[in-house]
Amino acid sequence: MYRLYYYPNNASLAPHFLLHEMQLDYELLLVDRKSNRQKSSEYLKLNPAGRIPTLIDDEITLFESPAICIHLCEQHPEKGLIPPLGSKERPLFFQWLAYLNNTLQAELMVRYYPHRHTFNEGGIPAIREAQDERVAESLQIINEALTGKQYLLGDDFSACDFFLFMLSLWSLGTKRSPMSFPHLSQYLKRMAQYPTVHEVCKFEKIDLQAFQ
Amino acid sequence: MYRLYYYPNNASLAPHFLLHEMQLDYELLLVDRKSNRQKSSEYLKLNPAGRIPTLIDDEITLFESPAICIHLCEQHPEKGLIPPLGSKERPLFFQWLAYLNNTLQAELMVRYYPHRHTFNEGGIPAIREAQDERVAESLQIINEALTGKQYLLGDDFSACDFFLFMLSLWSLGTKRSPMSFPHLSQYLKRMAQYPTVHEVCKFEKIDLQAFQ
Repeated sequence: MYRLYYYPNNASLAPHFLLHEMQLDYELLLVDRKSNRQKSSEYLKLNPAGRIPTLIDDEITLFESPAICIHLCEQHPEKGLIPPLGSKERPLFFQWLAYLNNTLQAELMVRYYPHRHTFNEGGIPAIREAQDERVAESLQIINEALTGKQYLLGDDFSACDFFLFMLSLWSLGTKRSPMSFPHLSQYLKRMAQYPTVHEVCKFEKIDLQAFQ
Repeated sequence: MYRLYYYPNNASLAPHFLLHEMQLDYELLLVDRKSNRQKSSEYLKLNPAGRIPTLIDDEITLFESPAICIHLCEQHPEKGLIPPLGSKERPLFFQWLAYLNNTLQAELMVRYYPHRHTFNEGGIPAIREAQDERVAESLQIINEALTGKQYLLGDDFSACDFFLFMLSLWSLGTKRSPMSFPHLSQYLKRMAQYPTVHEVCKFEKIDLQAFQ
C-alpha cells in the first residue's frame, strides 16, 4: 500500500493522478498547508525540503513529485505510463518531465511566491509581471511541441501528460491563460475529459470549468 | 558517436563528465554563448528552450541536462552510474537529481540572472541577496543528506554526484561557499580528486583550487 502526503492542487496532484489511473492500493494523508504542517518537525523528517508531496512505499520514503511519478511508473511498467527502456520515446519522457519541472514549475513558483525571492517588498509587482511573461514563454514552447501531437510524447499517453495538466491548472492564475495557446488548448480540453483527471479533480475539489 | 553541444562550466558539464567517465565515443560542439549562439535559429531547432546542452544520439535529439544524464546512464547500465531497476537506491537517484535540478539549479539561475525575473532594475540587488540565502538553504539540505555518506546515494557513486559537483562549482560565486558546509566540503574535496572531474575540468579550464 502506498501512502501519499498531499494537499489539493499541489505538486501531489500528478502522483495522485497516477495512483488513481493505475488503480493502485493507496492512502492519502492530508498535509495541512493552512497551518504550515509541511514545515513541522515530523514532516521534515520525511521530506527535508518541507514540501508536498512525499510518498511512503514500504521502507522507501520518497520526495520530489517527478521522482515519485517515475517510481510509480517503473514499478508498474505494464500500465504503460513510461516508455520502455531502449525506446526512442523514453529519453523524451525524461526531457519533458525535466523541462516541465525545472522551467514551467520553477517559473510558476517564483510567480506565486515572489516574496521568497526578494528582500524588497516593493519589488514584488515587477517580479510578478516578469514571471507572467516567463510562464507564457514556457507555455509557448510546450504549445509548439504539441503541434500535430495527441500527447506530449506523440501518440502515446504518459505520466508527463498528468504533470503538464497539473502545471496548466496552476498557470490559469497567470496573465496569459494556457487556453490561449491553440495546440495546448485543444490538448487540455481532451485531457480534462479523461476519466482519471475528471475523478481526481472532483475529489480534490479542483474546478475544470476553464477547460471546457 | 554522441555529439554534445556544450559551453565550459554550463549545464553541459554533467553530461560531459559522464561521456568521459564512461569512455564513450563523443564529439564536443561549442555553442558560443558570448555571441548568443544558443538563441540562433539553427540551435533553436535542436533545442526550443535555447539553452545548453543538447545531445545528438543518432536520430535522437535531446535537451535538458538531467534527461541527457539519465539517457547516457540507461544506455550503458554496465557502467553502474544509475542504480538498477527495482533497487531501493533507484528512486533516490531520481529524487536527488530532481531536487538538484528544480531547486539548487533553479535558485542559482535566479541568483545569477535576476534581471530575467523582474521588470524593475532597481530591485535586482534585493533579489540577489534573497537568492544567496535560498542557495545556502538548499546547500544545507544537501549537506545534511551527505551526513555519514560517501556519495549522495550512500556507498555507490552515481551520475547524481557529477550533477551535484557541477552545481557546487556554480555555488562558489554565491555569498556562502559550499565549502563552508562540513559534510559537503569533505565530499567536494574527494570529488575534486576524482580523475574524470579533474580531467574534464582541466579541458573546460575550470579552476578546482577552491576544493583543495
